[in-house]
Amino acid sequence: METSVKIEDVIVLGGTHGDEMSGVCLVRKWLNGPPLTAETCEVNPYLCNVEAIKLCRRYKDCDLNRQFTEENLKSALADGELSYEVKRAREMNEKFADTSGTRFVVDLHNTTSNSQLCLIVDDLDNFTLHMCRYIQQAFPKDVCRILMLGGGVINGDTLCMVKRGITIEVGPQPQGVLRADIIDLQEKAVKLSLEFIDKCNKGVCFDSCQIDGYTRSKKVDFPRDSHGDIAGMIHQNLQDQDWKPLTRSSKVLRMFNGDDVTLRDVTDDVGVEESVYPMFVNEAAYYEKGIAFYLANKTCVTLPTLKLNN
Amino acid sequence: METSVKIEDVIVLGGTHGDEMSGVCLVRKWLNGPPLTAETCEVNPYLCNVEAIKLCRRYKDCDLNRQFTEENLKSALADGELSYEVKRAREMNEKFADTSGTRFVVDLHNTTSNSQLCLIVDDLDNFTLHMCRYIQQAFPKDVCRILMLGGGVINGDTLCMVKRGITIEVGPQPQGVLRADIIDLQEKAVKLSLEFIDKCNKGVCFDSCQIDGYTRSKKVDFPRDSHGDIAGMIHQNLQDQDWKPLTRSSKVLRMFNGDDVTLRDVTDDVGVEESVYPMFVNEAAYYEKGIAFYLANKTCVTLPTLKLNN
Repeated sequence: METSVKIEDVIVLGGTHGDEMSGVCLVRKWLNGPPLTAETCEVNPYLCNVEAIKLCRRYKDCDLNRQFTEENLKSALADGELSYEVKRAREMNEKFADTSGTRFVVDLHNTTSNSQLCLIVDDLDNFTLHMCRYIQQAFPKDVCRILMLGGGVINGDTLCMVKRGITIEVGPQPQGVLRADIIDLQEKAVKLSLEFIDKCNKGVCFDSCQIDGYTRSKKVDFPRDSHGDIAGMIHQNLQDQDWKPLTRSSKVLRMFNGDDVTLRDVTDDVGVEESVYPMFVNEAAYYEKGIAFYLANKTCVTLPTLKLNN
Repeated sequence: METSVKIEDVIVLGGTHGDEMSGVCLVRKWLNGPPLTAETCEVNPYLCNVEAIKLCRRYKDCDLNRQFTEENLKSALADGELSYEVKRAREMNEKFADTSGTRFVVDLHNTTSNSQLCLIVDDLDNFTLHMCRYIQQAFPKDVCRILMLGGGVINGDTLCMVKRGITIEVGPQPQGVLRADIIDLQEKAVKLSLEFIDKCNKGVCFDSCQIDGYTRSKKVDFPRDSHGDIAGMIHQNLQDQDWKPLTRSSKVLRMFNGDDVTLRDVTDDVGVEESVYPMFVNEAAYYEKGIAFYLANKTCVTLPTLKLNN
């Protein structure tokens, strides 16, 4: 049995990346009214990277989603000496400081990969894992997956992991484009997260259960030439095939000269009998980070019964 | 009967827009070798907006594809006083100056819309229209369309229209992403254009024929709020439905409040009995230009027999 505290308010973040349009447009819609509400707590939609949103770019100076580090948040440097995103991270951290643990953050993201609905959570946070299950059950099979990030990320650099929260990542959607199907998926997931919080806050008990999720195992880069430019691309067999199992002989990349590259060619880490799962395949923002796709493993987690501590 | 001059060289342009990756990667591939060749003429691949390619953005200061104006090209201003793209337009115009009419330009573009392969050409240029037909016939039905731009555009501001040429636009592909299916379509179209030029240069006669094409009739913007931000989106019925006929009652936009907007609501120009065709639906770069999609009409053009003048 795990007991949860009552959630007093929920921050819904759009535009952590300025060109991920469904979060930007949902938050704007709720700010312009009618507002997004819950029965048992406050809900505050918030636009994060305002300058990047104006530019319709991921970021202005650096990726806001990597700036919530201890070093940045406690930096002795004056605002004028900091990049826009570090300043913004400090502002947001002050505004949303959460000492009582009664705040919950929902961070809205898009990807160009065919992820469908991907809920990114801390693998040790049973409250949020129960929320994921609640959201997942409202969608048809294979629409909603759960990506569980380990302890290393909890002490990480994204707002959602500094506070308690969930990242709702939806794709495929090009940067700077808003698709009706994608915004609908995201809005439904946000409303389900609030529904879950309301139920919890009212004392509804969530039974012990098992949930399937994915854990990140490895990143694979594009082949590169001596200038660092890509020398190949995602193989046509892998394009749009996020979450579909790969084996060692699966073709994953194709060189510009036409040669196929198998999974075996890019990693020794995958056993002969093992299945691995690709995710974030051909995400636009990952080209500069040296990531063509991630490999994930499947995992199954047993959740304890969850009930409000009252 | 129309006679054509022998084409002496072909310039293949990639990266007119720096984040349209299939042109950038094809041109880089051909520059790094093995080279792109034709039997009867020189072929010169060329990267246009080098700074924008580095940034992986459409442009640095302004859209290069709109800078080949008389005013810019003949400006008395010194280079230091001009934006990067105007300077680049001048450089390119000098480098590719074509007084003999024996040069042909192939300009490679991508769109986030589900255009498939769209050949954009001058509607008065029978040589290039014959080339379009040659390319189109090598693809299955509904893969390759021809967009015929009128005389106003010939005296326009894109390199391809200042010189004789063709724009090969392929989608859907997010900005900053390279998809194998899209680059393959584009490469095949480029090779077919060279094949056609070789045949013409060798004296092959192309018979008089009819071809179907589209002409641009009208642009439709997103609904906007008082800040100029979008207040709605492409309707789910229209998303990815480029080139599929619309009637006056077709739902084309959806407001954030859920209200549907029909074609009749956004234009009075479409007759009751008339079919119009949407194109460039949800193209990322058009948000800032105030274009949610274009409407096109279908047209049928009779081409005269084409033969080399020798």
